[in-house]
Amino acid sequence: MSAHIVSGFDEDLEVLRSSIAEMGGISEKMLADAVTALVRRDEVLAQRVINADNRLDALQRQVEEQAIMTIARRQPLAVDLRDVVSAIRISGDLERIGDLAKNCAKRTLAIAGGFQPPRIVTGVQSMADLVLEQLKDVLDAYAQRDLERALDVWRRDDQIDALYTSLFRELLTYMMEDPRNISFCAHLLFYGKNVERIGDHTTNIAETVHYLVTGQTLTAERPKDDGTSQARIEVDAATGK
Amino acid sequence: MSAHIVSGFDEDLEVLRSSIAEMGGISEKMLADAVTALVRRDEVLAQRVINADNRLDALQRQVEEQAIMTIARRQPLAVDLRDVVSAIRISGDLERIGDLAKNCAKRTLAIAGGFQPPRIVTGVQSMADLVLEQLKDVLDAYAQRDLERALDVWRRDDQIDALYTSLFRELLTYMMEDPRNISFCAHLLFYGKNVERIGDHTTNIAETVHYLVTGQTLTAERPKDDGTSQARIEVDAATGK
Repeated sequence: MSAHIVSGFDEDLEVLRSSIAEMGGISEKMLADAVTALVRRDEVLAQRVINADNRLDALQRQVEEQAIMTIARRQPLAVDLRDVVSAIRISGDLERIGDLAKNCAKRTLAIAGGFQPPRIVTGVQSMADLVLEQLKDVLDAYAQRDLERALDVWRRDDQIDALYTSLFRELLTYMMEDPRNISFCAHLLFYGKNVERIGDHTTNIAETVHYLVTGQTLTAERPKDDGTSQARIEVDAATGK
Repeated sequence: MSAHIVSGFDEDLEVLRSSIAEMGGISEKMLADAVTALVRRDEVLAQRVINADNRLDALQRQVEEQAIMTIARRQPLAVDLRDVVSAIRISGDLERIGDLAKNCAKRTLAIAGGFQPPRIVTGVQSMADLVLEQLKDVLDAYAQRDLERALDVWRRDDQIDALYTSLFRELLTYMMEDPRNISFCAHLLFYGKNVERIGDHTTNIAETVHYLVTGQTLTAERPKDDGTSQARIEVDAATGK
């Protein structure tokens, strides 16, 4: 009887893990496609990113329902309970990552026809590439229960924040240089902020992997602070520079 | 024995509900204070909002842990299970609302010393007042299991989105009028976006109340779409208007 229960639990867990793996694949692809759509000004691809989000939402609801049923039916303890709780948390973060990638794609549609010097997009692109790498690494860390790899992701979050702070200043400078840049750059500010928040969710996932493997909550202060919420650029009113 | 279990469940539920009530009170106050801090340029109050967020985070972790233990120990069914799942979801939304209010307060600190015509703040303030009303209403709807009131909140979300779209255009216009407004208005764009997202979380809570009372997921398309992600303001390069 006990063996039967254990086996039922393992099957439940396998289903949860495979749903999370599917969610991870979709969210990675959404982010990668959202960046390509921006760089190539590809509206069809942007629309595809927007459409992909439904599947992610459905999977998240499925993981949540199935996890709760598993807790009620199997009453797992210790690492088994952490496994199920981690699945709920990670599916929540991946669903949010999908929302944010979808919002990036919407911004791409908003600016598709406008005036847009390619150099302005470069900063967003490098930041997004770094975040995509973080997302891949943290999903591998989860799949392999690799604590060290998760901690690497967690530590690197400040690089993303530094890139975002410099992007914020750069975009404000472009706005001041030429009012034709303002609308375009305002959308890119939000695009960049979305990417930075995707980075925050990869850090959340790294924290969940830490909790899953060790049973402890990471107590150290997260190495992140969005510097731009305190950033200010002083301008000379006459020149706008 | 059965009565004992039921009574244990009711006690668990009571603890969950009182934690949610506390979280609701804190998040309402954080949003109200964040708006006052912006309008009065009150840096001390802004800092107080930032500090209040820790308590909200702690309560959210506590609700999540306690809810999971309740599901494992009591194996609730039907409406009882929905009650516990709703507590998890609502505490998640309230925790996010706290994060967003905290971010608003950080933006207030960022722009505290700069050049800022008071009329520019007015649009943000009206929007925040409406969102605060929505938040109060949805917390009452949850406390009283009032489906109609929850649906009212749910339907009004498009008003917030309309206000945000007009705020977005207004702020871009101020930026184009005078480059000295650019940095200040960029922060206000994010401030407004945070408030709009607080509105989204009140809508989430309304959907959770619907699920709690009826057992059904709201399938109608949410009456919301952030129009600004597709907004564009055409400017004449010479005048910047």
